[in-house]
Amino acid sequence: MDLNSDVGESFGNWQVPDQQMVEVVSSANIACGLHAGDPITIRSTAAAAAKNGVAIGAHIGYRDLAGFGRRFIDYDLNELSADILYQLGALEAMARAAGSRISYVKPHGALYNTIVTHQDQAKAVIDTIAEYNPDLPVLLLPGGHALEYARDQGLRGVAEAFADRAYNPDGSLTSRRQEGSVLEDVNQVVENMLRLAQDGVLIAHDGTRIETEAESICTHGDTQGSVQMARAVRDALIGAGIEIRSFAG
Amino acid sequence: MDLNSDVGESFGNWQVPDQQMVEVVSSANIACGLHAGDPITIRSTAAAAAKNGVAIGAHIGYRDLAGFGRRFIDYDLNELSADILYQLGALEAMARAAGSRISYVKPHGALYNTIVTHQDQAKAVIDTIAEYNPDLPVLLLPGGHALEYARDQGLRGVAEAFADRAYNPDGSLTSRRQEGSVLEDVNQVVENMLRLAQDGVLIAHDGTRIETEAESICTHGDTQGSVQMARAVRDALIGAGIEIRSFAG
Amino acid sequence: MDLNSDVGESFGNWQVPDQQMVEVVSSANIACGLHAGDPITIRSTAAAAAKNGVAIGAHIGYRDLAGFGRRFIDYDLNELSADILYQLGALEAMARAAGSRISYVKPHGALYNTIVTHQDQAKAVIDTIAEYNPDLPVLLLPGGHALEYARDQGLRGVAEAFADRAYNPDGSLTSRRQEGSVLEDVNQVVENMLRLAQDGVLIAHDGTRIETEAESICTHGDTQGSVQMARAVRDALIGAGIEIRSFAG
Amino acid sequence: MDLNSDVGESFGNWQVPDQQMVEVVSSANIACGLHAGDPITIRSTAAAAAKNGVAIGAHIGYRDLAGFGRRFIDYDLNELSADILYQLGALEAMARAAGSRISYVKPHGALYNTIVTHQDQAKAVIDTIAEYNPDLPVLLLPGGHALEYARDQGLRGVAEAFADRAYNPDGSLTSRRQEGSVLEDVNQVVENMLRLAQDGVLIAHDGTRIETEAESICTHGDTQGSVQMARAVRDALIGAGIEIRSFAG
Repeated sequence: MDLNSDVGESFGNWQVPDQQMVEVVSSANIACGLHAGDPITIRSTAAAAAKNGVAIGAHIGYRDLAGFGRRFIDYDLNELSADILYQLGALEAMARAAGSRISYVKPHGALYNTIVTHQDQAKAVIDTIAEYNPDLPVLLLPGGHALEYARDQGLRGVAEAFADRAYNPDGSLTSRRQEGSVLEDVNQVVENMLRLAQDGVLIAHDGTRIETEAESICTHGDTQGSVQMARAVRDALIGAGIEIRSFAG
Repeated sequence: MDLNSDVGESFGNWQVPDQQMVEVVSSANIACGLHAGDPITIRSTAAAAAKNGVAIGAHIGYRDLAGFGRRFIDYDLNELSADILYQLGALEAMARAAGSRISYVKPHGALYNTIVTHQDQAKAVIDTIAEYNPDLPVLLLPGGHALEYARDQGLRGVAEAFADRAYNPDGSLTSRRQEGSVLEDVNQVVENMLRLAQDGVLIAHDGTRIETEAESICTHGDTQGSVQMARAVRDALIGAGIEIRSFAG
Repeated sequence: MDLNSDVGESFGNWQVPDQQMVEVVSSANIACGLHAGDPITIRSTAAAAAKNGVAIGAHIGYRDLAGFGRRFIDYDLNELSADILYQLGALEAMARAAGSRISYVKPHGALYNTIVTHQDQAKAVIDTIAEYNPDLPVLLLPGGHALEYARDQGLRGVAEAFADRAYNPDGSLTSRRQEGSVLEDVNQVVENMLRLAQDGVLIAHDGTRIETEAESICTHGDTQGSVQMARAVRDALIGAGIEIRSFAG
Repeated sequence: MDLNSDVGESFGNWQVPDQQMVEVVSSANIACGLHAGDPITIRSTAAAAAKNGVAIGAHIGYRDLAGFGRRFIDYDLNELSADILYQLGALEAMARAAGSRISYVKPHGALYNTIVTHQDQAKAVIDTIAEYNPDLPVLLLPGGHALEYARDQGLRGVAEAFADRAYNPDGSLTSRRQEGSVLEDVNQVVENMLRLAQDGVLIAHDGTRIETEAESICTHGDTQGSVQMARAVRDALIGAGIEIRSFAG
């Protein structure tokens, strides 16, 4: 099983203490500078990933520092494509300087959510990745348009599950506005993720069993509590004899 | 002889009509996004250069859109290095997508001028280029610290002359604040550049002959008049049997 | 009748030659720095408007320099409100330094178009203006939600017509993708605008007469041709004895 | 005695926990958006200051988010002046919306340090403040050129002392690179600041007594420890019968 986390999200004096997550996960989604991540942060994060044998993923996002890439932007599609290619190249240079390379791509924030249903932006994202390097897996929400389109284009689409989020019976995430949508009980999270890794199922908030193709577990590392939760998931998986390694191996 | 020009300097709705210069020069200094050049501009400019067989140079600059990279910034040197690597990677992706690659580097604006004398920034610039790709020539002002340091590090330092600028007897440029510092007479410019290409000499404003090692002529293309001047230089050189081709060829 | 135009849209080295329009119009929509307009541009444009007795309008937009404020952004509404207040204050300081003040507000680009139908953003825009200064008129597209909501809140909503755009029989603008949507015949534009000023009607592309409440004519000034068109409209109106003065007078 | 602190330094998702300092100090230096502080942060910080009866100061800085305003930029002076006026206006709108107003100005970071000796930038800063509102006090380092020039122009220049910094015998701050330059012992800091408030003297690292005209104590609030130190200083001053109130009151 793979553990992934968003890292490299500092910008200038604004430091996000996410670098320790590089030692917890097997796949590091590194911000590429347009929604977060200044060059020196990207460089040091890529170096830390390379040093720890962690796969480097390009966490591509909208050009929106003030919104942290979390606001939908109605991009011209050629501009979106160029912004993505720009981010891939910038991160690649940092990864190469550290003796590694980009091993996969994960869209960030509003871009991630938008391409679940927005066919034009999904096409722009996937086509740009395919043009850059068709061997790069793309880490996505299961069941969305982007995942389907990626596979149609011959790319490897990898689905992920969210360690700390509650699920609806249909496999979608419960809204963040709904109480209980973010799980805080470490034991429950660990139990859920063990079940996922062993049986390939998630349990919805009403108890429904959901079969999932998730090959990666998304964890967070921007607070002390979230790092502990991620470590607990990691330790439990290893304790159960499950190897932690990147899908992008 | 090589002709180079700064291109790719548009940003969003602000269009600089510099793409026609790609058909005039043999080396295109393409902005990389931090002082000018949004990703779609960089991409289309790199594609035009590739199509015309023009060498693609990384026109690296300070992170300063509002100042167009023309204001000295007292960077932390590790941040400067990371900003440069970021720009190199971003442009490389665009060049590769167009079937080409970065063939040389030219610092832009205040960075270009600063490293003539600022040893720390010069070292950061040259060391970063050397780390990225030690085979890349660096286009610089003759006589400065950066050129010397680049050569000390085993990089190929290439000196350039400015078609439309007046020179002091010691080979330095006359100050822009001085009258006559920018040459507007196309015939004079053409005559100067022919002499440079044929004899390796520039004529200072007082008539002094200056021997120079310049292997490239910097032309401008951001106004209609400047494009015509660049074309006149090109045509005159070709008419004299001088081949126009990049030093980075 | 009022003539308005977007001005102050330069940014750093990227100069939009829009300052001459300040001598043509009676109302100057000055960019406020988030989609265009750096502080020195805003300052000099406000000074030119003050000197020419032209009303200063705050051309508020999304925070999106790369997109020039022309891409819809799905803002958090409190952030949108704060971004607007920020722009109003910044421009106010420039207007006051020039001995004038903000006399009206006009949303720009995607924000202008969005609030025709997007009720939440329309409310955020209008409520923020009302909180800042309820005496400020708001220049808007006729018939939209924002205009109606502004009036419901007791603000003066002012409708405008577009000199160089073709209209559908229902009073909406024809799509820019449709041939003939942008009028280039100066005589036709002048005739249309005279009719508007004298009879309060626009003629749709199929000949339908459209009664309109437009109190202002939007002209453009970012190309040489557009300035000439604006001047022609101005001269024709004056020649017909119609006074050119701001609705915000 | 006045206590001041830098606040409003969050930007988008990057939250600096500095709002609690608004309850500790009497003068709040609020970032204005160019080096830190997005509009919603500025707005809420200004509102908190107004609610707590704390004086609002404009913490003006260089346009440099990536460098947090801590890198010297060799500005054109008219651009610097316009950038300052822009920040003053933007913050003023936020202060007014909260029922308050700007009561003083404090340059930030590299701008603060630069104008101690850089006469041109000092003049640009002071002249712009004087033009905006000559009644605004300016909070500065004692002994520098900016303070002298401000007073020459008839502005009220207010000198400050730094609670957590060691001093040289000549009254200058010891370099941050020197060991012991940042004081971490709360008792020592409290003792120093009591002596300052009561006797008007600072003690240099070698024991030399330094008479100072400081009317304000600069404290920090970006870490938990720094907030506790600021609270300790506040409590000790109050306990000694010294009133905490803004010089700008």
